Amino acid sequence: MPIIRIELLPGRTALQKARYAQEVTQLTAEILGCAQETVDVIFTEIQGEDWVHAGVPYAPPIHAQR
Amino acid sequence: MPIIRIELLPGRTALQKARYAQEVTQLTAEILGCAQETVDVIFTEIQGEDWVHAGVPYAPPIHAQR
Amino acid sequence: MPIIRIELLPGRTALQKARYAQEVTQLTAEILGCAQETVDVIFTEIQGEDWVHAGVPYAPPIHAQR
Amino acid sequence: MPIIRIELLPGRTALQKARYAQEVTQLTAEILGCAQETVDVIFTEIQGEDWVHAGVPYAPPIHAQR
Amino acid sequence: MPIIRIELLPGRTALQKARYAQEVTQLTAEILGCAQETVDVIFTEIQGEDWVHAGVPYAPPIHAQR
Amino acid sequence: MPIIRIELLPGRTALQKARYAQEVTQLTAEILGCAQETVDVIFTEIQGEDWVHAGVPYAPPIHAQR
Repeated sequence: MPIIRIELLPGRTALQKARYAQEVTQLTAEILGCAQETVDVIFTEIQGEDWVHAGVPYAPPIHAQR
Repeated sequence: MPIIRIELLPGRTALQKARYAQEVTQLTAEILGCAQETVDVIFTEIQGEDWVHAGVPYAPPIHAQR
Repeated sequence: MPIIRIELLPGRTALQKARYAQEVTQLTAEILGCAQETVDVIFTEIQGEDWVHAGVPYAPPIHAQR
Repeated sequence: MPIIRIELLPGRTALQKARYAQEVTQLTAEILGCAQETVDVIFTEIQGEDWVHAGVPYAPPIHAQR
Repeated sequence: MPIIRIELLPGRTALQKARYAQEVTQLTAEILGCAQETVDVIFTEIQGEDWVHAGVPYAPPIHAQR
Repeated sequence: MPIIRIELLPGRTALQKARYAQEVTQLTAEILGCAQETVDVIFTEIQGEDWVHAGVPYAPPIHAQR
């Protein structure tokens, strides 16, 4: 039943994400006490220009780059 | 006022989604008792390699494919 | 696989929500072409003072009420 | 600590979004009383055919266009 | 059309939130170029024990408190 | 930078959640390659009558219970 979402900047490989999801699924089953078959993990990549931390985008807007 | 979000794997046509949204809008108005003009439906497609169910991605990571 | 979320103001009964979820589940299976067993519907009620439309909360802040 | 998300249709420039995020960050610090260093702003663009208001997509499905 | 969500810890008054939402609505209309009538702002308060930053909850679990 | 959200049914203790968040934070740092100081984990508990799987709520609506 649990749904786990991860928002992150691009840059991780698909294999890194697959391994991460698998380990999070195991942890969830173990610590939260539910069957692995019921766990969903969903990744959402946010582009650096769409994620602004402390007023500054992680990546500069393309139109301002040189 | 209600906002309805649907997360799904790719593979549905735009016309399927448009018809679905229209029927969900009607249902919402009818059963939850609100004007159709106030209903928003938002689709978010999740790529198969970003959605991991029971520890297994719906689509295998590209780098692992042959 | 699809996950459907509904954000709405309070005021619907649990039975209204149960019936709505059931019909949305059927619609989803029918139009989007997936098994009913894979559909999740999640309701999130937002209090009127936490939902501000066009600059005006659906319910006035309690401290400002008389 | 606050996380602010904006869902919007495409069409704003990266510079518009950067300026918006900066002003929202300031407002958040000022009115909600927290350090600017702790504020995250995340934009999510929704394609017009994926956002259906009052039963009508903001953009018509591509397959139905001429 | 834009939907703006703010996740934050409890502790702000309803009036603070109302004022914040109003100013964000104006900013959104001004900078992103849309009518104020189409802007939704939604607050979600997260309890301190449900928000874990850098591995540490903002508030200690109740059962561990004295 | 990553934000991790867990939606789950009630029933886990605050200590279970704290331990889970801590281990997920470590995993995230290790596998996704980011500093633990930048990881946020947020829990959202969904009441059983608000989560409908395969057309059936996890908990029956209160008004229908005996």
